Amino acid sequence: MVCPLPDSPDTPTEPRLVGLDWGTTSLRGYLIAAGGRLLQQRHRPWGIRQLPPGGFDEAVRGIAGDWLSASPGLPMIASGMVGSRGGWKEAAYVECPAELSKLAAGLATVETPLGTLRIIPGLIGVGDGRGGRPPELLRGEETQAAGAVASDPSLGEDSLLVLPGTHSKWVAIREGRIEGFQTFMTGELFAVLRDHSILGDPARQMAGGPRDGAAAFDRGVAAVRESGPAGLSPRLFSARSLMLTGSLAEADTLEYLSGLLVGEEIRCAAAAAGGTASLPAIAIAGEAALCDRYLRACRACGISGVRLLGETAPAGLWMIAEAASKGAAA
Amino acid sequence: MVCPLPDSPDTPTEPRLVGLDWGTTSLRGYLIAAGGRLLQQRHRPWGIRQLPPGGFDEAVRGIAGDWLSASPGLPMIASGMVGSRGGWKEAAYVECPAELSKLAAGLATVETPLGTLRIIPGLIGVGDGRGGRPPELLRGEETQAAGAVASDPSLGEDSLLVLPGTHSKWVAIREGRIEGFQTFMTGELFAVLRDHSILGDPARQMAGGPRDGAAAFDRGVAAVRESGPAGLSPRLFSARSLMLTGSLAEADTLEYLSGLLVGEEIRCAAAAAGGTASLPAIAIAGEAALCDRYLRACRACGISGVRLLGETAPAGLWMIAEAASKGAAA
Repeated sequence: MVCPLPDSPDTPTEPRLVGLDWGTTSLRGYLIAAGGRLLQQRHRPWGIRQLPPGGFDEAVRGIAGDWLSASPGLPMIASGMVGSRGGWKEAAYVECPAELSKLAAGLATVETPLGTLRIIPGLIGVGDGRGGRPPELLRGEETQAAGAVASDPSLGEDSLLVLPGTHSKWVAIREGRIEGFQTFMTGELFAVLRDHSILGDPARQMAGGPRDGAAAFDRGVAAVRESGPAGLSPRLFSARSLMLTGSLAEADTLEYLSGLLVGEEIRCAAAAAGGTASLPAIAIAGEAALCDRYLRACRACGISGVRLLGETAPAGLWMIAEAASKGAAA
Repeated sequence: MVCPLPDSPDTPTEPRLVGLDWGTTSLRGYLIAAGGRLLQQRHRPWGIRQLPPGGFDEAVRGIAGDWLSASPGLPMIASGMVGSRGGWKEAAYVECPAELSKLAAGLATVETPLGTLRIIPGLIGVGDGRGGRPPELLRGEETQAAGAVASDPSLGEDSLLVLPGTHSKWVAIREGRIEGFQTFMTGELFAVLRDHSILGDPARQMAGGPRDGAAAFDRGVAAVRESGPAGLSPRLFSARSLMLTGSLAEADTLEYLSGLLVGEEIRCAAAAAGGTASLPAIAIAGEAALCDRYLRACRACGISGVRLLGETAPAGLWMIAEAASKGAAA
């Protein structure tokens, strides 16, 4: 168990690992104690496409230099797009199904002025090659998934882990392995529709936030649910038509749109599993406000018993570093 | 019947009506003979949001001035966003179900230096007010629908008329009336994903067109079909993952995306009707290349006997003008 525990004389407080969650647009740094316990965390806007002057080396120094000065020789590990072809050093995709030892065996390493940085590989689901199941790719979410199972070992048996975001991932976990996953472009769809489509028009003209955001979000989820197997497509325009006919406040159209899109993601994931009743245990991990939104939509779609895990990346970074140490010792 | 017929001594050649199809970004002008026969047509980029200097008056003069000089007093009629609140003069939405006489009774009129211009109202489907069926709005497609029934009267009994475009409309026609319709934002979704999402990235970097566009389009349609009730959402990212894993050429990703989106539109329309077997007669009207794309996707989805109608707006403008004359005479 690596859940945050109340401090006690046994609580580990000594830094043991620097973990980096390094994506396209942001860099998160974690100072981690034994068992994956989070001691400190930081956030910088230094994604791999927007590095500071001095590049990768300078980003590591900026986010973790003082931690490494205080604890020289502290091991470092990173996950995310930093290991992609356009990142610092490529860590080749590992094929699903994959367990911790397989991820640990695929680590890439890069030398930095502050020591060796290990980079966690992404995962590939190769698909069936015929179109029945497309290939799938992820980087970073493998670490969140490892942390999720560490924080709630019962998920290791048979579960679906939901990782909401720009490209949401639904990760299937069985018998301690990541079996496969599906991608939903929900966050990106919301952003392009808000910023570039007619659905964002009224919102762009509005000052201030939503008037009754939660109700509008729920209404969007309900609209997709009531659409049945036809789902989102014939309802997308209702984000405008309800506003034009006066039954949705202009200020609430984006919350309604969010409900449509999140509702569709959940509807489709349930349909792909053969229906809501066929879903295994569901857990949601990531940023709290976004997870709450997904939890709310799951309940509205009749999915109960959903667990909220919070940020699981630090625990995952620890688990994969530990698996690598064991592999090296074996 | 107002289908184009081979010229004969009885073929009408005398101009009887100037018809305008006036949207947000373009203006089409038609010189029309008796029976809706098209004599001449023109296209100008003078949508209601990009009028020429001199505004609406100048646009009418530019597109139809010589026709009216040659045939003084020729009646004029327009359809589309020109009748919206942000257009020249509002022609209030008419409620579905609606027949020709109801559209004709809702005409607005505006005086121009070249004579009176009548403006055809749009249609509103009020929905059920509870979210089971959202409100729907259209402007311009009511005229295409009237023209479609004029060109193939058998469609008047019980049919679905597909009008592909930025916002595709599926118009249900029964017993000579427009019963209702559904909106699919397929064209706009394609444009925003191409121009602003990660799915357009490779295409933006490519010179030249697709390598095997038709096959890529068909593959996209098939992917949605094979996804079953889960439909598009878990497949959208495959437009990128298939490319990244080398099984889809970068140059073909946009055609594949188009197949995904058009396929989803057809899948959803069929699902909303209770399945492919429950669909009434289907006809597609509009721009030829786009209609061909929809016909191809319909066939791939197991929908046969689909009729292609071409551009039906001129015939529709004639039919509504005729209905207005009869109403005035009655």
